[in-house]
Amino acid sequence: MLEKHIKKAYNESTEGKRKGDKKTESEKIREYILSAKKITVPNWDGKKLESINRTLKKFGLPKAKGLKINTNAADLTRMPTITKALMAVDTTDSDLIIARGRLGVPGSGSMLVIMDHKGRILSAAISPPHIIHGKSLQEAVEEELKTALQRLGL
Amino acid sequence: MLEKHIKKAYNESTEGKRKGDKKTESEKIREYILSAKKITVPNWDGKKLESINRTLKKFGLPKAKGLKINTNAADLTRMPTITKALMAVDTTDSDLIIARGRLGVPGSGSMLVIMDHKGRILSAAISPPHIIHGKSLQEAVEEELKTALQRLGL
Ligand SMILES: Cc1c(O)nc(CC(=O)O)c(C)c1O
Ligand SMILES: Cc1c(O)nc(CC(=O)O)c(C)c1O
Repeated sequence: MLEKHIKKAYNESTEGKRKGDKKTESEKIREYILSAKKITVPNWDGKKLESINRTLKKFGLPKAKGLKINTNAADLTRMPTITKALMAVDTTDSDLIIARGRLGVPGSGSMLVIMDHKGRILSAAISPPHIIHGKSLQEAVEEELKTALQRLGL
Repeated sequence: MLEKHIKKAYNESTEGKRKGDKKTESEKIREYILSAKKITVPNWDGKKLESINRTLKKFGLPKAKGLKINTNAADLTRMPTITKALMAVDTTDSDLIIARGRLGVPGSGSMLVIMDHKGRILSAAISPPHIIHGKSLQEAVEEELKTALQRLGL
């Protein structure tokens, strides 16, 4: 249950007493991720999904399913990756969403986000534009997901 | 002028022909950043501002000004850092905003974002929760800004 901890943190901020993240908060996020049963990746791209599943396996997490939805419209918004992730929140009953796409304006590079069932951001990772880093899609996605999980202590 | 390139990219996405970022797009973002005259950092925190200015100088960019606005309310939103940056867009006439705060839910660690005068995301960088990385605020902020600029080829 993240809600109890979020409420406490919100109250701290209202009172001007918030001093940054607490160990228990990050631990609750780790628990949420580790207990996920249904993981969804919006935008059915075979390669992207395989890379994600290879990495999830290393962390002891269940396989993600691809969501067959056209996400092109997300690329006409201010935050394409967040918009894609929310498409999956709104059209599935997944516990966890892993979306990958553009960070911001065209040319701004990529982002991978880990979102919970209510659309809250649990973790993320950012890469340079592919024309700058020159990595394969698979390599970039695997690194981003690894980073996004490890930064929380997983 | 980013608008012309954004329109072209949006049209590509609508037609299902978008193949990721183009060199010219990232170049236009670099040009926009390098020509910034007024840079603002919402949330007046002396240490944070000094770290940001030390880094901006290394990249040949002008000093940023702190914005005296209470940003606590941003920490009760889904994307605290983006919300803080938008507060600066809405209350100043800056060319560039550099905001730093929490990524998502409490416990999710931090984010630094570089935003343009209309609220568009040009670049960003993400760090682990401070209780996990154990770095000083100054060190973390300097690294994040450096990463956010270098990933675009600056
Ligand atoms: C649609 C789209 C886009 O325009 N740009 C990017 C970033 C990149 O090419 O590095 C991505 C991942 C993307 O899905
Ligand atoms: C208000 C706030 C918060 O709750 N968490 C963080 C992330 C961290 O502590 O690593 C930051 C930067 C912050 O400004």
